[in-house]
Amino acid sequence: TIQNSRVTSRLKLTVIGQIMGTYILAQSEDGLILIDQHAAHERIVYENLKQRYHSLKVQSQSLAVPETLELNFKEADFLGSILDDLKMLGMVIEPFGETTFVIKAVPAMIDEKEIKPIILEILETALVKKDRFSKEDWLEKCLVLMACHSAIRANLNLEHIEIEKLLADLEQCENPRHCPHGRPIAITWSKNQIEKLFKRVL
Amino acid sequence: TIQNSRVTSRLKLTVIGQIMGTYILAQSEDGLILIDQHAAHERIVYENLKQRYHSLKVQSQSLAVPETLELNFKEADFLGSILDDLKMLGMVIEPFGETTFVIKAVPAMIDEKEIKPIILEILETALVKKDRFSKEDWLEKCLVLMACHSAIRANLNLEHIEIEKLLADLEQCENPRHCPHGRPIAITWSKNQIEKLFKRVL
Repeated sequence: TIQNSRVTSRLKLTVIGQIMGTYILAQSEDGLILIDQHAAHERIVYENLKQRYHSLKVQSQSLAVPETLELNFKEADFLGSILDDLKMLGMVIEPFGETTFVIKAVPAMIDEKEIKPIILEILETALVKKDRFSKEDWLEKCLVLMACHSAIRANLNLEHIEIEKLLADLEQCENPRHCPHGRPIAITWSKNQIEKLFKRVL
Repeated sequence: TIQNSRVTSRLKLTVIGQIMGTYILAQSEDGLILIDQHAAHERIVYENLKQRYHSLKVQSQSLAVPETLELNFKEADFLGSILDDLKMLGMVIEPFGETTFVIKAVPAMIDEKEIKPIILEILETALVKKDRFSKEDWLEKCLVLMACHSAIRANLNLEHIEIEKLLADLEQCENPRHCPHGRPIAITWSKNQIEKLFKRVL
């Protein structure tokens, strides 16, 4: 096990199981924890991508069949201006004629099928927000979208070992409490709260 | 599986596990259920004993070494007056001199070590309440005490098969929602309630 001084690593979670193919139940030293597997994985992917971006340790996977993007002039103009930054995120996109681009590689954590909708959503937001869409803004949005699109879904049965890995990765996160959209990752009930629910204590 | 037309039997509970050695987690078709194992077993024992009493199908176990009860006059007077009813509960107690009694057999579900404190508590209450302690009253108190004393405790690890048995027995109960003391046996969270906790829905 990995040594880690963060508070969450002291939770010492014991996996109990998965319910509805969507939530993970675990026991901590103080009570019961219910974890939203999609939200948890979003947080893990988000922080991983962000850290790799900032530490220049991006991991890309080349596409066997490069995908083309046919854009309008405004979209092409914006995309052309952010290609260098996208490369630092692991997205290798190259111009291919006036308003056409080719996606040559995607971040290693992202399914290649997911990347085109992400780019198109970024471009759409950029054209709507114009000057109110700073580099920090689209970078953040890009990380959130990549995390959301590549995170494991709800209604997916996980093996025990996959659950263990997910919880271990979550404990390594800087903010293991909320997904990148701000929704809670975990709901906890302390031993005392449970005893109150059962009227074992007042 | 047993055919049963009661509402609870349609819960189709799937055992997920036990937490804190005290609560059982199960998934129903609609959500998550947390069950207090002691409260659940109290209910099961209570209804079983009550049913056997009313259907005259009591099961007794003889004590290898009969236990004696040394009482005062008032206690002996009251106990002497309820021996026939106690026998219908599975408690075979016989007079043994003026204020002494011998416990010869106890209900099959009850640990023989538990019976003496139960009798003494009934007698104590009888002398305090006097005329306000009807046959229904002491019979009910006796059933509740026997259930409480013989039910599995909290902080006891159960095997999966024991948990399955407990839930199956609970589903056969007339009132599977509350223990004989009136405390809740189960806390439930519907799928929708869980989604709200995680802000997946509003």
